[in-house]
Formats: sequence, structure tokens, C-alpha cells
Amino acid sequence: MFEEILNNVATKMPLIHCITNYVTVNDCANILLACGGSPIMADDEQEAAEITSICDGLTINIGTLNSRTIHSMLKAGQRANQLGHPVVLDPVGAGASELRTQTTRRLLEQVRFSVIRGNSSEIKTVAQGSGFTKGVDAAAVDATTAQNFEQVAAYAKQLSQTTGAVIAITGAIDLIAASERVYMIRNGHPMMSKVSGTGCMLSAVIAAFVAANPTQPLDATAAAVCAMGLCGELAFQQIQAAGGGTASLRIALIDQMSRLDAATLNGGAKIEAR
Amino acid sequence: MFEEILNNVATKMPLIHCITNYVTVNDCANILLACGGSPIMADDEQEAAEITSICDGLTINIGTLNSRTIHSMLKAGQRANQLGHPVVLDPVGAGASELRTQTTRRLLEQVRFSVIRGNSSEIKTVAQGSGFTKGVDAAAVDATTAQNFEQVAAYAKQLSQTTGAVIAITGAIDLIAASERVYMIRNGHPMMSKVSGTGCMLSAVIAAFVAANPTQPLDATAAAVCAMGLCGELAFQQIQAAGGGTASLRIALIDQMSRLDAATLNGGAKIEAR
Amino acid sequence: MFEEILNNVATKMPLIHCITNYVTVNDCANILLACGGSPIMADDEQEAAEITSICDGLTINIGTLNSRTIHSMLKAGQRANQLGHPVVLDPVGAGASELRTQTTRRLLEQVRFSVIRGNSSEIKTVAQGSGFTKGVDAAAVDATTAQNFEQVAAYAKQLSQTTGAVIAITGAIDLIAASERVYMIRNGHPMMSKVSGTGCMLSAVIAAFVAANPTQPLDATAAAVCAMGLCGELAFQQIQAAGGGTASLRIALIDQMSRLDAATLNGGAKIEAR
Repeated sequence: MFEEILNNVATKMPLIHCITNYVTVNDCANILLACGGSPIMADDEQEAAEITSICDGLTINIGTLNSRTIHSMLKAGQRANQLGHPVVLDPVGAGASELRTQTTRRLLEQVRFSVIRGNSSEIKTVAQGSGFTKGVDAAAVDATTAQNFEQVAAYAKQLSQTTGAVIAITGAIDLIAASERVYMIRNGHPMMSKVSGTGCMLSAVIAAFVAANPTQPLDATAAAVCAMGLCGELAFQQIQAAGGGTASLRIALIDQMSRLDAATLNGGAKIEAR
Repeated sequence: MFEEILNNVATKMPLIHCITNYVTVNDCANILLACGGSPIMADDEQEAAEITSICDGLTINIGTLNSRTIHSMLKAGQRANQLGHPVVLDPVGAGASELRTQTTRRLLEQVRFSVIRGNSSEIKTVAQGSGFTKGVDAAAVDATTAQNFEQVAAYAKQLSQTTGAVIAITGAIDLIAASERVYMIRNGHPMMSKVSGTGCMLSAVIAAFVAANPTQPLDATAAAVCAMGLCGELAFQQIQAAGGGTASLRIALIDQMSRLDAATLNGGAKIEAR
Repeated sequence: MFEEILNNVATKMPLIHCITNYVTVNDCANILLACGGSPIMADDEQEAAEITSICDGLTINIGTLNSRTIHSMLKAGQRANQLGHPVVLDPVGAGASELRTQTTRRLLEQVRFSVIRGNSSEIKTVAQGSGFTKGVDAAAVDATTAQNFEQVAAYAKQLSQTTGAVIAITGAIDLIAASERVYMIRNGHPMMSKVSGTGCMLSAVIAAFVAANPTQPLDATAAAVCAMGLCGELAFQQIQAAGGGTASLRIALIDQMSRLDAATLNGGAKIEAR
């Protein structure tokens, strides 16, 4: 299923502009190189649009946003839209502060995103910022489970329709939705939650996969989500022999991404169309 | 001795707001997750107080301070005080520049700290900023040794009394002082000095341990200092088989923290009350 | 050849002020400690000159430059010049945006550099900023190969004369030039290009080696370039047993630097004077 998607990443070597947080930025840069893309991090207002114009895609992550970088996010996003580059939004902590919630709203108003990836709580804040009906709040606040999957899928498909973006709600079970189709993905390992930045890294990989597969944003996003989760599972297995630990998991996860091939991904992806 | 302290961290999973430097921030985030807490890094002035209000503790580290983030440190510190959250100060490089010395002074004037952790030179600068008598400068400038321990202990207890904070002077020998009691701790390995950020990481772990044990700031700080040092010792032993090196030590140290249990800590802590 | 140079680093333990990018800054700090130096990262305008005055050398890396840090680079650079400290320029992405190209130009106008290290494209932009003749553009745009080496060497020697700096053009083949002599260096492993920051790390190590060997900037730079490349080769061999991967390579590279001795460096350096 994912062979063509991975091959396109390897062939096109997408250059991804990352305006992201300073906590996980090094891991984002390294996982982009590992998956076959390459990163540029540039967040000054004077060059944000210019840098994005020479790239293939853009990822905007508000993890350590500040008044200076918010302007750069908007400028780069708008330039990427003009040039038809895919833009990924990672609304880290949206809902946790007025600044993050307002910034998410401004980004959604001024930039068209190809993919929006976050946890249940962050996507709920995104939905509210899209003027979404109050009725789905109950479905949106809980983590996605096998039991509530259909309910969350309906809400995610509607949000995808409203925003024009693929909606990726990640957690123990990942839900990836476009207006016409939804995937349930069960890759990953619980220890990944003890590694800072697995979500940030995933958003960067999504940007690379979508930039290399611009006509298949939903499947490219699904491929990226499966890849990260599978790399986490393989990493966990790999580190057990030496005792293991959360820092070794982080190193092994990036290692696994640098060695991932289509056969392994297709063999290990736990994905169903729903 | 430390079983209850560690159990509280595991049970409460304290959320720690870190306004810290961009050199070691990723390791601080990962060691917080490893020890049982979790991190939020947020340094914009508009959200610093708001983010701190949803956390359990705050750590302020001036390692790469700038005029923008200094305001955020003050605002977050004051909100944490209002809410009764413990605040840890790591006055990195205090004394090395006017900016760092003045900022340390402003922080001490406007924020009540639960713990102040630094090396001999930084703590001396803190003492001077507290209007401390000149007479102890001689004792304060040298590293803590077995020979001068009593002298440094007396000065540290006085500084604790003046600031209301637990004073942690870390080095080859660590001295942890409150007005009523002092601990000498001898955990650690010399190779840790070749890893950037072991001090920054320790301050983050202290914040988590104190946030989970708010009525025992001295013992919680001592537990954190023993834990970091012991994890360094275990990490050093672990990496020798494969040849070793300073980057492997850093990874192994965080791994060891993610696997640390009370029995190991109690068995390996080299601590005496003095 | 390099024994004296390495010994000087070990003996003098140069303190290097790094005004660098937030993507690779942790690796830069750790590789400085690994090679025998130590790092201070400080980029606020109020303290940049003051911090540089207590250091032995300065490295300026424009990787994530912003309007605030540019001022700090200029101030620190000028203070370093006044004090006779070596200054290394890493013009990351010069040519990719107006901001980077203009900033590189301003830096070259206001600061005297001891070493300028970059890839072919960045050094070309440096040359243009030095008012260099148009005639060498053809030679400057391509990567250095065995076939065009003499041509690039001539241009690099001229640029060294114009700037007063050792010129280090790094790639699969590295070319290190001063006005009187040129070295060709063939150390390194292709996988290093999949690790973010190997160039940034190299610039930091160059600063340490030159600070410890101020009368031999060309040979010190050559030693640093050989060392980084050789550590990459040794790291690649080291990680193969366990499956390998790009994150493991990064860790092993820093490990190898922390264990590097003169005998290994002299034995493994692939360097010829040309």
C-alpha cells in the first residue's frame, strides 16, 4: 500500500521548512533526514517567506511560540499557499493558553493547511476555532477508543471538510480523516509517550511524505503515522536486549526510520480503512 | 529513606513548567519524562503566568537568558508564588556577566524560591545578591571539599535562612542545606562534567521531586541530587562494555533515570546528614 | 603531525563562546566538551561582548539567525577582535535568503575572522560579499572534486588573502586554504550527511583547536577537519554491529571525539598538502 509513497520520498528528497519549537527541533531535523527528506529551520520574519519559497513543504509547530515567530509562521504559511506547497499544522498546547488558542485561530484564518495533526484536546481547540458546532464537544474531548471511533470519525470528517485539511488525531489509536475516508491506525508503543517530541517529529515526517506525494495527502499522512508508530515498536524491541530506557528509545526510533523500507512498512502497518 | 519521595513522583506525575535555556532544553524535557514528571516549555510573556498556573511546579534557568525571556521568568515566578507552586532557580553563569548577575538579583527580589541549585561560584553570586556579609566570600569561592565542608555548610544554612530556599551547591561533593539541616552527597561520576546540561537536568528533576513532595523540599532535593548522581554512576558502568563515550553517557543517564526504583536509589545513595 | 595541536587543546581547555543556531546547539556544546574544550552559549546583546571577553575563542553560526542575535554576533565579534581571540564564521545558508547573505556581508565587513568554514555554495556567497571577481564563479559553484581541486584551491587561497581567514570548504573532499598553503582532506563517511549539524559541530571544534593553537590556524583547522571526519568513519564502523542508524551515528561520533588521541588521529588522517 505504501510502496509508491515511500519511493516518492526517497526520489524527491523533499526539503521541508520547519518553524517549530526549540525543545524538539534537533530531533525533527534528524528524523527528516532519516526519512529521506531534509530540513531548514528559519524563523526570522525577514526571511520566513523567502526560505519557504525554496522548499517543498512547510511545517508550523507552535510548541514554543513567541510574538516574533508567530509573524513568521503567518508569512511563511501564506507564501506556501501561494506556491502550492503543502503546509502541516501542529497546534501544540492549543487550549492550554489564550496565546496558543488565539494563534491557532489566526493560523486557521490566514493559512490553508494540508494536514492538521494533534491530540484529541488540541484538535478540539482547532475545531472550536473553525466555528464548529458545540454539539460535538463531548465526542471531541475524549481520547479515541474502539468504542467511540465512529463518533470521532464523523466529527473529524466534518472538520476536514470545514478546513480542507487532512485531520490526524493521534494517540494510542490514531484516527486520520479526510472528507471521504477515515483510517484507524494502531501502530506505536506506550513508551513513546515518555520521549519528548514524538508528535513534533511525526508532524515533520508528515510534511515530507505529503510534499513528496502532493496528490495523496490522506494516504501520505497515513503512511507517515504508520511509519512513526512502527519505528517506535521496532525501536522498543531493539533496545530491550541492552536494558532499554527512554533515551535509547528515542535514538533507536530515529535509527529505525533511517533504515525503514517499504516491505517493512507494509508488513508492520496496523491500518484499516473505516 | 527515599521510597515515599519517589512514590509520590510516580503517583502525582508532576507537570513542570520550564523556562530554561535552548542548549539543554531537550535533555531537560526528556529527563522530566524519565523521572515520572512531564514538561511544558513556554517562555512568551503573554502566556508564561497562564501556563504556570496549570502546572505543579516551575523551574527557572537563566542559561541563555534574553531581555524577552527575563520578563517571562518574573511573571511566571510571581504567579507560581501566588498559587503556592514550588519554584526552582538555576542561576547559570551568575557572576559571569552583569546581565546574569542583575537578573539573578531581580529574580531573588521578586520571586520566592523553594530551591536554588548551582555551583560554588553561582551560589556565591546568589549570596552577594542577597546582601550577604562579605566575610563568607572566602568559604564561598572554593569548591566544597571534605576539609571545608563545615564552613560551607554554615554559610549555606545562613543563605537558606535569608532566602527561604533549600540551597543546593553541586560539584564533586554536593551540599544540600536548609536552615535546620545539611546533607553531604557523594554520588556522581567525573565524566558527567563532560556532558552539557547535567546541572540543568538536575534542576528540572528537583522541581519534579519537590512538586510531588511539597512538605519535604529538603529531602526531595536530596533525593533528586542522589538520583542524578547515581544514574550517572550506573550509566558509566553500563557504557563501558561498548567502549563508552560522553554522548553514550548522556543517553545512558536518562535511560537509568527512566528505570530507577526506590530500592536502587536507597541502595546506591551516598548521603549523610551533617 | 597533529600531536602538538591536540595536546594544546587538552592542556589549555579552551572556553568557546558560541552564538549559534538552536537546532544543533546541544550537539555543538557536547562535541566541544568531548574534544577537550568547553562551551558558553550566550546571545543577548547586553552580554555578548562581556561573555566573549572571558572566553578563549568565538564561533558565529547564522543557522537560525534573527534580528536580535545578529546584533550580538557583531558585538561579540568586534570584542573578540579587540582581545585577539580567534573568531570562526559558519555562514549557514548564506545565499539562500537576502537576510543570510546580507548578514554574512555585514559580518565580513565588521569582524575579522580567523577561519571561515562552509560548503561550496556558502563560501561562494562569502566570496561575492568580499567583492570577489566574477571570473571565479564557475569554479566556486561546484563541489570540490579531484578534477577541479587546483581551480578551487586557487580561488580559496585568493579568498584567504582577501579576508585574512583560513578558508575551509567542506564536502566529500575538504579543501582548507591559507594564502601560502592548501590541504586536501578526505576523511569522513557519507552517512554523516544524514546527521543534522555535523558542519555546525565542526565549526565549534575548529574554534577550540584554533583557540588552543593561535599561531597555527591553518594546521589547527586541518586537524579539526580530519578529526571530525575520522570520528565519523570510526563511528560508522562502531555502529554496524548493532544494526546502525543515523541517530546512533551522531551519538557514536561524539563518543569517538571524546576518546580521540593523537596516535589515532595521525594514523587515520587522510590529508595531503597541495
